[in-house]
Amino acid sequence: MTTGARRRMGVEERRQQLIGVALELFSRRSPDEVSIDEIASRAGISRPLVYHYFPGKLSLYEAALRRASEDLASRFVEPYEGPLGSRLRRVMARFFDFVEEHGPGFAALMRGGPAVGSSTTNALVDSVRQAAYDQMLSHMGVLGPAPARLELVVRSWISLVESTALIWLDGRRVPRDELETQLVQDFAALAAVAAAHDEELATLLRGLLEKEPGDGPFTDLAVRLLSLAGR
Amino acid sequence: MTTGARRRMGVEERRQQLIGVALELFSRRSPDEVSIDEIASRAGISRPLVYHYFPGKLSLYEAALRRASEDLASRFVEPYEGPLGSRLRRVMARFFDFVEEHGPGFAALMRGGPAVGSSTTNALVDSVRQAAYDQMLSHMGVLGPAPARLELVVRSWISLVESTALIWLDGRRVPRDELETQLVQDFAALAAVAAAHDEELATLLRGLLEKEPGDGPFTDLAVRLLSLAGR
Repeated sequence: MTTGARRRMGVEERRQQLIGVALELFSRRSPDEVSIDEIASRAGISRPLVYHYFPGKLSLYEAALRRASEDLASRFVEPYEGPLGSRLRRVMARFFDFVEEHGPGFAALMRGGPAVGSSTTNALVDSVRQAAYDQMLSHMGVLGPAPARLELVVRSWISLVESTALIWLDGRRVPRDELETQLVQDFAALAAVAAAHDEELATLLRGLLEKEPGDGPFTDLAVRLLSLAGR
Repeated sequence: MTTGARRRMGVEERRQQLIGVALELFSRRSPDEVSIDEIASRAGISRPLVYHYFPGKLSLYEAALRRASEDLASRFVEPYEGPLGSRLRRVMARFFDFVEEHGPGFAALMRGGPAVGSSTTNALVDSVRQAAYDQMLSHMGVLGPAPARLELVVRSWISLVESTALIWLDGRRVPRDELETQLVQDFAALAAVAAAHDEELATLLRGLLEKEPGDGPFTDLAVRLLSLAGR
C-alpha cells in the first residue's frame, strides 16, 4: 500500500481493505495475538486512522468474522443436480478448503473463550450453522419445518462436521480427502440410525438412497460395511 | 440456614456450602442472570461474607463448574463387565440425568459467550471430554496412545453426544431414552464408517461386535438397518 493509494481510498473502500487485512491476520492467529498496531501497519495507515473506521479490535474482529461467515455460507450452495452423496462430497471439499485457509482462527473461534466470544460472534456462528441446515433440508427435498428427528440428525451431523474439522486441525493425522468422504458417509450412517427408529425418516432415506449411483459414497459405504460384517 | 448453623461452619465447610448454592443457581440460569446477592441470600449470609470466601462471581462460577465437572466425569465410570453396548447405554442414561439436572447452565456453558468463557472454564470442559475419551478407550481395551483414526472417531462421537444433548434441550421433542439408545448406535455407526477405511480399526470393531448379545443396542441397529435396506 502506498501513501498515494491510501489518499485515494473512499470510506467504504478503506473499511473493506481493513476487514481484509484483519481477516488474514485473525485467520492465522487467535484474536488476542493480533494487535491494532499490526493491522494498521499491514494496511499502511496509522493506528489512530484504524480507530477512525472501527472503534476497537472487537468490532474489527466481528467485521472480519462476518465476511468469513458469508464466505463459508456461500460455499454450501450447490446445484440441485446429481445424487445427494456427490453434492455433499463437493460441499465437504469446499468446507475443508475454508478450514485450511482460516485454520487457527477457525479453531480459536470454535473453541470459544474470552478473547473470542461475544453475542455477535455467537450469532454469526449460529447463522452459518443455520445456512448449512437450510441447505441440507433443501437438498433432501424437505420443504417447511422438518420433523423433530430429522432436524436432530441434520443439526447434530453439522456439529459433527465442525468438531471433526477441529480435531483434524490438531495434527492433521488423517488425509483430508478421506475425512471428506467419511463425513458424507457419517451423514448416511447417522440418518440410518435415526431412520431405524422413525418410519417417516426411513421413507425419506429410502427415496434418497434409490437415487445413489453404484460408485457414490453411500454405495461405497454399504459395500464396505457388508465386507466388515464378513458377508 | 439458621444463624446458629452459620456460626458453627468452618472455612472449608462454608466454601463447600457456597459452591453448592452457586451450582444450583448456575444450573438453572446462565451466569449473567445470577447475582452474588442472590447467592448470599440463599446461603443465609451477607454479601461481603461471600466475598470473604470468593473474590468474585467468576471464581464462584469456576468452583461450581469444577464440582459439576467432577460429578459428570464420575458418571462415566462403569464396571468392566458385560457387552460394551450395554455399558455405553448406562453411561448415556447417567449423562442425560446430568443434562436434565443442570440443563440451562449446561447449555449456557457449552454455547459459550462472554458471560461464561474463561481459560479455566475451557480447561474444565476439556478435562471432562478427556475423561470421557479415556474411559471409552479403556472400555474398548485400547491401552496406550490410540491410532489417529480411532482417536478421531471417539473424540468426534463425544462431541456428537454433547451437541445432541444441547439440541435436545431446546424443546425436548424426542424421547430421552430413544436418544440414549441412538447415541450408542451412532457410535457403532461412526466406528463402522471409519473401520471401512482402516483395517486395524476394523479388526478392533469385529472383536467388540462378537461379544455383543442378540438383544443389545448394536444388534438392534444391525437388524433395523437390514430392514431399512429392504432385506
